[in-house]
Amino acid sequence: MSKPEFHPVILAGGRGTRFWPLSRKKRAKQLLALDGKHTMMQQTVARLLPLAPAKNFMVITNEHLHAEIVRQVPKLDKKKILAEPAARNTAPAIGLAAFLLEGTHPNAVIGLFPSDHVIADAKHYRVTLLKGIAIAAAGENIVVLGIQPNRPETGYGYIEVEPGSNSGEAFSVRRFTEKPDAERAAAFLRAGNYFWNSGMFLWSAKTLANALREHLPNTAVILEKIAASFGTKKFAATFKKLYPKCENISVDYAVLEPRSAKGIGKSNLYCLPADFGWNDLGSWTALHEHHTAKTRPMHDNVIASDATFTLNAQGNYIHAPGKFVAAVGVNDLVVVETGDALLITTRAHAQDVGKIVKYLDEKKLHKLV
Amino acid sequence: MSKPEFHPVILAGGRGTRFWPLSRKKRAKQLLALDGKHTMMQQTVARLLPLAPAKNFMVITNEHLHAEIVRQVPKLDKKKILAEPAARNTAPAIGLAAFLLEGTHPNAVIGLFPSDHVIADAKHYRVTLLKGIAIAAAGENIVVLGIQPNRPETGYGYIEVEPGSNSGEAFSVRRFTEKPDAERAAAFLRAGNYFWNSGMFLWSAKTLANALREHLPNTAVILEKIAASFGTKKFAATFKKLYPKCENISVDYAVLEPRSAKGIGKSNLYCLPADFGWNDLGSWTALHEHHTAKTRPMHDNVIASDATFTLNAQGNYIHAPGKFVAAVGVNDLVVVETGDALLITTRAHAQDVGKIVKYLDEKKLHKLV
Repeated sequence: MSKPEFHPVILAGGRGTRFWPLSRKKRAKQLLALDGKHTMMQQTVARLLPLAPAKNFMVITNEHLHAEIVRQVPKLDKKKILAEPAARNTAPAIGLAAFLLEGTHPNAVIGLFPSDHVIADAKHYRVTLLKGIAIAAAGENIVVLGIQPNRPETGYGYIEVEPGSNSGEAFSVRRFTEKPDAERAAAFLRAGNYFWNSGMFLWSAKTLANALREHLPNTAVILEKIAASFGTKKFAATFKKLYPKCENISVDYAVLEPRSAKGIGKSNLYCLPADFGWNDLGSWTALHEHHTAKTRPMHDNVIASDATFTLNAQGNYIHAPGKFVAAVGVNDLVVVETGDALLITTRAHAQDVGKIVKYLDEKKLHKLV
Repeated sequence: MSKPEFHPVILAGGRGTRFWPLSRKKRAKQLLALDGKHTMMQQTVARLLPLAPAKNFMVITNEHLHAEIVRQVPKLDKKKILAEPAARNTAPAIGLAAFLLEGTHPNAVIGLFPSDHVIADAKHYRVTLLKGIAIAAAGENIVVLGIQPNRPETGYGYIEVEPGSNSGEAFSVRRFTEKPDAERAAAFLRAGNYFWNSGMFLWSAKTLANALREHLPNTAVILEKIAASFGTKKFAATFKKLYPKCENISVDYAVLEPRSAKGIGKSNLYCLPADFGWNDLGSWTALHEHHTAKTRPMHDNVIASDATFTLNAQGNYIHAPGKFVAAVGVNDLVVVETGDALLITTRAHAQDVGKIVKYLDEKKLHKLV
């Protein structure tokens, strides 16, 4: 058997309000270099390029971010960097990739990847993906990468697996759960057979196409029409006209949950444990933790600046590139300065940043969002 | 008796490190508009102009600030805005004014005024000064304006007066004290016959000239030579050459303390209680208090910005003009942003700002000081 062909589909829509004022509608989280020199979008592509030629990549984004993405990942085929005419969540996005490939490469494995996550160990990430690709290629299997939880996180969906079912390293999936409350999250952590849903999935083009025909029949018809026009002069108009008619639904809701209801043995759903230093960097607080763990800075101060003076200051995240920053007698703050805005909050309050963006939206302060 | 002629001498040297990063070597506190539209220098001149014609004013500053002061107070006589070739404290500065006037206007009253204080009630300030001018003109009297203390402040010098001696509203002065420690400051406050030394003095040109001849004879000779050259082509060179040879001493040390030692009845030293809303705005904390008392802002947040969003935030002083400022879950902070620097501290730590300037001086980061 030849090595299965691999086609990454990168999801790069999303607004990234949680990194305001750095993230904006036209400069979402995945287009920022929050973790080093390259943006998270660029890092996502660079991590996957050893597994697939550039022409295999497809990117789904929105109109606000399209031009910047084309600029950031020049190696990729521009024709396959698509701006959704309307946000329709993950099921139509990945479905379009399935129908584009099904006719010519039915056995190609499609991988769905968020573009705004950090992976510490790219090598181990690729080793894991190759295992998942093999499982996905071996039949009508659907593979989801699951992250071993280390805290009772309430911000993620969880995957419950069948204990002891991981002969091939992947567990059989019992069910997907929505974001739990604190009590249930703690119970999941204690139980030991729950993983965080990473949002990374693997399946063959024909498995995915068939799953969409089964679970989202109307949307599947629309996507087949769009896929048929790809490469023709009519594509842009067809995409713009038909895509908004797709259901606005995640692949989790549309396919994985109903599929898991069929029961183990029939669902063909597998969870492959992923242990490559995954972090979704969901807030300034998470970014602070990520940097302190990585660089172990003095007094846990993470400061982006021209130069710095600190005195009785610890646990601060300060972003003011090009400025001299002086922090005196302050702890656990998050201060982020841009050309037009200044955020001053604490690590404990950083999740409230979304409220600022909501306020700016309401006040129609468009330049600031 | 005709109304005494009045000649204000404004001291506008001084570096104002306590308002870093807004205050700099070339933009000292008195040249900032910390309290409204006009700078403290401009406010000082505007407050005094109803009492004396512009040609009577003299300003002593340093070379860093000279050009900016000339720009800020265009009504004043440029020739009388002097930049000290070397900082020599208040005695030589005020002494020069005395010798300049003594020959032609021996009975003119000279007033010494810091340029970096805030006065809430300018009208009452002028009424008080007119009283002081009359006392100073009535003989060889020296009048110092004393502020009624309302807290055991350790940052000011105190004036002890003779209780019950204020028949003419001015008390006889027993002695001047240096900045006390907390215990002594509390005792002064309880005693009731202590005033803060405002640094504002009134005396006639001949009284002051004679006092300098008596207490600082060498410096008096130098200042007489400089004064003799005023208005001639030689002045600039003479001033530059001779002024640095003056003793570096305050008028308090050089004249007032030894004078008070002569005892009441002989010293001719009077303290005129001043109750016109004096504030020396000695720190960001003091400025915050000044603004909250004046404008009673919501949740005691004083924010200079383009627009603002606050949530669970109180008691903050934030200066970021032109920016949208969002403050979430933070209390009692001082955050000041300039083109090249960002200060993040607390109201309780604002007095440590001087340590930042010291660090910048040591590191020779001249652009930042």
